[in-house]
Amino acid sequence: MKIIVQKFGGTSVAGLNRMKQVKAKVEKKLKKGYKVIVVLSAMAGETDRLISLASDFSKNPDPCEMDVLLTTGEQVSVALFSMLLKDEGINARSLLGFQIPIHTDRSYGKARILEIDDEKLKKLLERYDVLVVAGFQGCDFQHNLTTLGRGGSDTSAVALAAALKAEVCEIYTDVDGVYTTDPNVCSKARKIPKIAYDEMLEMASMGAKVLQIRSVEFAKKYNVPVHVRSTFKDEPGTLVVKEDEVMESVMVSGIAYDKDQARITLVDVFDEPGVAARIFEPLAAHNIVVDMIVQNPSHEGRTDITFTVSRKEMDTAIEIIERVKGEIGARDVFYDPQVSKVSVIGVGMRNHSGVAAIAFKALKSENINILMISTSEIKISCLIEEKYTELAVRTLHEAFGLDKEPKMEQ
Amino acid sequence: MKIIVQKFGGTSVAGLNRMKQVKAKVEKKLKKGYKVIVVLSAMAGETDRLISLASDFSKNPDPCEMDVLLTTGEQVSVALFSMLLKDEGINARSLLGFQIPIHTDRSYGKARILEIDDEKLKKLLERYDVLVVAGFQGCDFQHNLTTLGRGGSDTSAVALAAALKAEVCEIYTDVDGVYTTDPNVCSKARKIPKIAYDEMLEMASMGAKVLQIRSVEFAKKYNVPVHVRSTFKDEPGTLVVKEDEVMESVMVSGIAYDKDQARITLVDVFDEPGVAARIFEPLAAHNIVVDMIVQNPSHEGRTDITFTVSRKEMDTAIEIIERVKGEIGARDVFYDPQVSKVSVIGVGMRNHSGVAAIAFKALKSENINILMISTSEIKISCLIEEKYTELAVRTLHEAFGLDKEPKMEQ
Repeated sequence: MKIIVQKFGGTSVAGLNRMKQVKAKVEKKLKKGYKVIVVLSAMAGETDRLISLASDFSKNPDPCEMDVLLTTGEQVSVALFSMLLKDEGINARSLLGFQIPIHTDRSYGKARILEIDDEKLKKLLERYDVLVVAGFQGCDFQHNLTTLGRGGSDTSAVALAAALKAEVCEIYTDVDGVYTTDPNVCSKARKIPKIAYDEMLEMASMGAKVLQIRSVEFAKKYNVPVHVRSTFKDEPGTLVVKEDEVMESVMVSGIAYDKDQARITLVDVFDEPGVAARIFEPLAAHNIVVDMIVQNPSHEGRTDITFTVSRKEMDTAIEIIERVKGEIGARDVFYDPQVSKVSVIGVGMRNHSGVAAIAFKALKSENINILMISTSEIKISCLIEEKYTELAVRTLHEAFGLDKEPKMEQ
Repeated sequence: MKIIVQKFGGTSVAGLNRMKQVKAKVEKKLKKGYKVIVVLSAMAGETDRLISLASDFSKNPDPCEMDVLLTTGEQVSVALFSMLLKDEGINARSLLGFQIPIHTDRSYGKARILEIDDEKLKKLLERYDVLVVAGFQGCDFQHNLTTLGRGGSDTSAVALAAALKAEVCEIYTDVDGVYTTDPNVCSKARKIPKIAYDEMLEMASMGAKVLQIRSVEFAKKYNVPVHVRSTFKDEPGTLVVKEDEVMESVMVSGIAYDKDQARITLVDVFDEPGVAARIFEPLAAHNIVVDMIVQNPSHEGRTDITFTVSRKEMDTAIEIIERVKGEIGARDVFYDPQVSKVSVIGVGMRNHSGVAAIAFKALKSENINILMISTSEIKISCLIEEKYTELAVRTLHEAFGLDKEPKMEQ
């Protein structure tokens, strides 16, 4: 049995005409002899409508009841789409999360998938040619409805593809793939035909909001090929696969940027064991995610510590820091919300030296000052003044030759 | 454990302010020490909106998928209402049909309840003070969602009350009870404090659309006291109970009428065995419900047969009759869509003679000609010209003294 999973987002199912385009995509695969699992999101705007409705009823809606409410969005989509398929004589049926079941933990609103009954699904695939599955939802082991968080339908699709060992998980969306950088910033951005899971994780978390991060983690864990492509065009998009299936020769795959950055510097803190903990533990306790951290070399038993947080959390972070300021000996706290992060990403970095040098040289050539640097095996990130963001992205894009088709090297 | 079931219809849950009134009703019972099962309908207009949406997608929507779609209406209601209760610290939770489960047969769109897991409900009532149950819905034994048909939330409520042996099943609606007749027709109509199940069945089927008929049949079968009352007033409504709990002395409880009647007469058909079957079998095969039937005494081996159908089905019925006209020997077919039925209803009729005589005399006093008569143990129905409907209702209402409080007789 050849199985394929196709996931369609909210804009792809917003109304009858859009759903007819989705139907055409499904029929194409049926003609090729596939059994098709279609995963649908709620119609565009529906989830927001329900959230707004809930906020009328409660300032702080019960998360468990919120999930009961929100799951109706996908339920409407799958019922309507199944009607459309059956009307044309296609042997299809809808499936809600609890009917499969897709079992999750009890973290309402951001539940994690624990198991999927693949045996039941395989039996259903013997009876039906298309199973139209409500994305974003599951249930815990007590039959309470749960949802997987924003973008959770991506994870539903990848998890179903993993459970059924589907040939590929196609994620249809309103963009036609993953680009070397944001085309709105750099007109020379190119669609990437193949990208590694780890690169995609870095790209996604950097704001190339094509796939829910968790779905990529899932795909990586179970080695599910994910094909991100457009509902409204017929050409291939971007294939997200294992690293060794991506051409080795490409040193850098893309340039990402993130303007949601703010920098906080603690001046002259005691350079002694435990100081870092006393700074970052209370931040973590308030769920503030710290991104880059730099500690200067010590000078006379004192040092400066600089870190970045999400811009909207800067005020809270400073409040917390002011409270511990005394015990860590900080003489002053500086902050700057006018910064952004540009990142060079590529699994090829592992085998190529000199990537950092190229990046720094390129930024210098445009007189862009680097405020902080952080690196991982497949990423180099530079914090810069926000006003240089677009220029930096274009400069790096050109410096790594991303505007040209990659050449095969020996 | 003192248990009460409270059902609220679509107008009672349409929006936040209405739901706050519902909350007040629930809190009142909590204060009296009850555990409360709240059964909710979809917000007014929501089911129609979903039906209209489905009709965009399919001319003849798949009934199974239709139920997946429609159940979202009640799901939204119970989630929002549960949020509201929990916000005030009330220990409540929502329950969908499949979560209880309320098991039904597989007749999508008009499913019948087969069993309710009362043990699970009782356990939940030990943990929660209020269970907010989605009305109108259940699931079959394969976890497919089902709905119980228009007004099905009434049946959900009565079935839950039966399963839990609740003290009473309160049906809150936008009218304040069952009246002796339509107050729009007869200003002297009085609210009936107590009515027998069988009387209610006759009243409901006659167009006093307060309760879904099936819920009354259910209540009768399991002897569930049903209290029909207003969400927006605080006074008692009408209690629907066993016959022996209703005062014996009342001869007649109410006057109903039905303008959705059309009369068809077959002239001079053969008076021989099997003729009636040849007329009514094809009608039944087309799902046409025949109400009153009268056959005149035979004359020279021939007879006239007259019957009534719903007005909108008259044309189809005549078409069918024209096809069998030859084989039954009918010389002519007459029809009249300008007729209506007035009915005198009361379990007291069983013990009182002369009810028919009073009715006929009253109609004669206003020169209203009776076109057909049918009777049951607790009902006398007269077909009359439609234009006399209101006059007939008022005349009968007065003839049986329904405008006065009933006197206790010895």
